[in-house]
Amino acid sequence: MKFIVFEGLDGSGKSSLMKKLESYLKDQAVDFISTREPGGSPLGDKIRNLILTQNEDVGLNPTARTELLLYEASRSQHVDTVIQPALQAKKWVLCDRFSASSVAFQAGGRQISIEQVIQLNQFATSHLEPDLYVLLDLTVEESKRRRQQRQGALGESEDRIESESQLFHQRVRKGFLDQALETPTQWLVLEASKSPEQLFDLLLTELRNRQWLV
Amino acid sequence: MKFIVFEGLDGSGKSSLMKKLESYLKDQAVDFISTREPGGSPLGDKIRNLILTQNEDVGLNPTARTELLLYEASRSQHVDTVIQPALQAKKWVLCDRFSASSVAFQAGGRQISIEQVIQLNQFATSHLEPDLYVLLDLTVEESKRRRQQRQGALGESEDRIESESQLFHQRVRKGFLDQALETPTQWLVLEASKSPEQLFDLLLTELRNRQWLV
Repeated sequence: MKFIVFEGLDGSGKSSLMKKLESYLKDQAVDFISTREPGGSPLGDKIRNLILTQNEDVGLNPTARTELLLYEASRSQHVDTVIQPALQAKKWVLCDRFSASSVAFQAGGRQISIEQVIQLNQFATSHLEPDLYVLLDLTVEESKRRRQQRQGALGESEDRIESESQLFHQRVRKGFLDQALETPTQWLVLEASKSPEQLFDLLLTELRNRQWLV
Repeated sequence: MKFIVFEGLDGSGKSSLMKKLESYLKDQAVDFISTREPGGSPLGDKIRNLILTQNEDVGLNPTARTELLLYEASRSQHVDTVIQPALQAKKWVLCDRFSASSVAFQAGGRQISIEQVIQLNQFATSHLEPDLYVLLDLTVEESKRRRQQRQGALGESEDRIESESQLFHQRVRKGFLDQALETPTQWLVLEASKSPEQLFDLLLTELRNRQWLV
């Protein structure tokens, strides 16, 4: 079994790429679960609402440290009750966001000390690391354009993180790229501006090169 | 201004003692706020529900690490949005439970590493420490008896923490006493079996000896 995490700015195409891999794994009769953060468990989904809701009552909006602690609470519940049980049952785990998002958003975006974020990640995950991070790298401008297009189509509004400044999202993008440079063998960086078919081909080639799939 | 925290097992009389001090401070025209953990802020109260609710759907019950992270999330919100603003406005802060409860319940009771709990407390509070912890020390048997009496009178049932085993609560009690021994000048330990009037007299004597009140 393998634990593969998809990372990137909102609108970078994580969900589409995950769906393509899910179909492929089904065809290959590979047992897997597909999950996401924040959330991924019944309690985690409640925590997700506390994190992402854009409240008019500002007393309900978490401060930067509270936000990080809520992400980590959602993560530890997710690891203990969903991800580890799946891995122990020899299933692949595909996950939309994981520890690297806290480094990118809370250390990069919110400028909390990166050592602190890494320590909290290690506590929340009991040091569990994905076998591979797939980063869909996208410019901040293109991420915003895609998000607005999707939200227009669905009649949704931006959540509390999406509505942060352009500078915030630039620090987040850099936060992802820095991690990929730091541990390159753990990361596959893809240009999210490529077509969905090209992106899936590149992912499949990587998984075959690693001899995880035939 | 002073930051005074009341600690002890449930049923140890924290609320009654706090109420007596509140009345006294009012009479003395001392500006104060009175608050509690988990909770104490609008977001914190929502987190409090996630922590304490005894769910039939076990997927909604936090694991030990998640529980600690939720307490710390509630705490950081409380410090940033309630406690620090009050202290900066030169108000006294009376608080029902604070960091020492996480050491007693999550390190003592749940047996998470004490170093880890202390690190998380420091992160959540930005190293804010109370001027005084008042520990209402009570046997586990007497705590249970008092809790059941109160719950019977109010028609309430035990929350998720209260319903833990006797052994758990014994470790919690020891967790409080160990902290008081470790930093004795920060702690006033009172025998909770004394009468409410005796307890308040002892507290008032301590505050006068410290020259915080006349």
